[in-house]
Amino acid sequence: MQYPLHLLKMINVLKRLPGVGSKSAERYAFHMLEWPQEYLDEMTSTIRDIHQKLQQCDECGCLKDEQRCQFCTEERQQSQVICVISSIKELFPIETTGEYKGLYHVLGGLLSPLNGIGPDKLSIDSLKLRIEKWQIKEIVIALDSTLEGDATSLYLKKELGPLGITTSRLAFGLPMGSPIDYVDGGTLARAFAARCKF
Amino acid sequence: MQYPLHLLKMINVLKRLPGVGSKSAERYAFHMLEWPQEYLDEMTSTIRDIHQKLQQCDECGCLKDEQRCQFCTEERQQSQVICVISSIKELFPIETTGEYKGLYHVLGGLLSPLNGIGPDKLSIDSLKLRIEKWQIKEIVIALDSTLEGDATSLYLKKELGPLGITTSRLAFGLPMGSPIDYVDGGTLARAFAARCKF
Repeated sequence: MQYPLHLLKMINVLKRLPGVGSKSAERYAFHMLEWPQEYLDEMTSTIRDIHQKLQQCDECGCLKDEQRCQFCTEERQQSQVICVISSIKELFPIETTGEYKGLYHVLGGLLSPLNGIGPDKLSIDSLKLRIEKWQIKEIVIALDSTLEGDATSLYLKKELGPLGITTSRLAFGLPMGSPIDYVDGGTLARAFAARCKF
Repeated sequence: MQYPLHLLKMINVLKRLPGVGSKSAERYAFHMLEWPQEYLDEMTSTIRDIHQKLQQCDECGCLKDEQRCQFCTEERQQSQVICVISSIKELFPIETTGEYKGLYHVLGGLLSPLNGIGPDKLSIDSLKLRIEKWQIKEIVIALDSTLEGDATSLYLKKELGPLGITTSRLAFGLPMGSPIDYVDGGTLARAFAARCKF
């Protein structure tokens, strides 16, 4: 394949995006060749500035627009509830539900001893400080329902137990709109165990 | 959804890539948030310069690296064959086969009256000039096997016929490695019509 050097460079740079292999990167690169310079400039200026324009809030770890963190409002602080999530991207689907109005706390990962991620790599100490600062009454654990998510949830429960606050975790059960025979055994077992009066 | 403004801008910019919808753009954006500034800079400098670094050759329309067009070599000119393709991206799969060693000519599209693309929008005049200049003996038409590709091929055949050169088109038939019962009727019919002694 005799791609010109700059095209190869372009393809290699695009392949760093998640789930993008050679074929997709080639497709993107050829498409971008047809873009007006204005589109290219808009893309480059946007990409260049993301670390400046999208910083993590020092307190909760969520993304803040310019100066202000929209998730550390007085109203949310008064709710006295913190929802613990592992990374920033989980915040937005939760916000979209409109079901939760409290504070957030980004852990920065999940416990994974095999990958060298121990409790010291997660922002658990700052969580404890915030619990004290805002007189938090409940911690809602919204972590993945995976092995790492389960381990991290149990660890948090153990760590926060002595503080005398309620810890809760998102419910497990059937996802909405799913036929019973398409649901996996693990989910079905948990849905049975947590069945409620109807 | 309360995405920070810059994240929204990022997502909108990424959605201009072909086949990238909101979900993929979000995924890319969140992934890029974790990139070091070095990766971001590399991407932006590469994207910004594509129009400067990858220009079309004035003669054949292929992409050239910096100054030199690697497809307008003396060796290729002496072959006295031109392969007509509709856009730059078709060149590389053809080159990869190693089957073709002649010149290329990028038409810049396919005839499509409904979309306002008539013969005047395609580089047919410059093709005729090149046929004369390099005393071309054969034109290989490597256009899509679609309605537009067929129409453009027929048009080229009609236009170039009076010049007294051979025009050929890529063969139609079974793609390699395909079971007969998976091949569509149109392809099968063409493979029957063009069957050869065995």
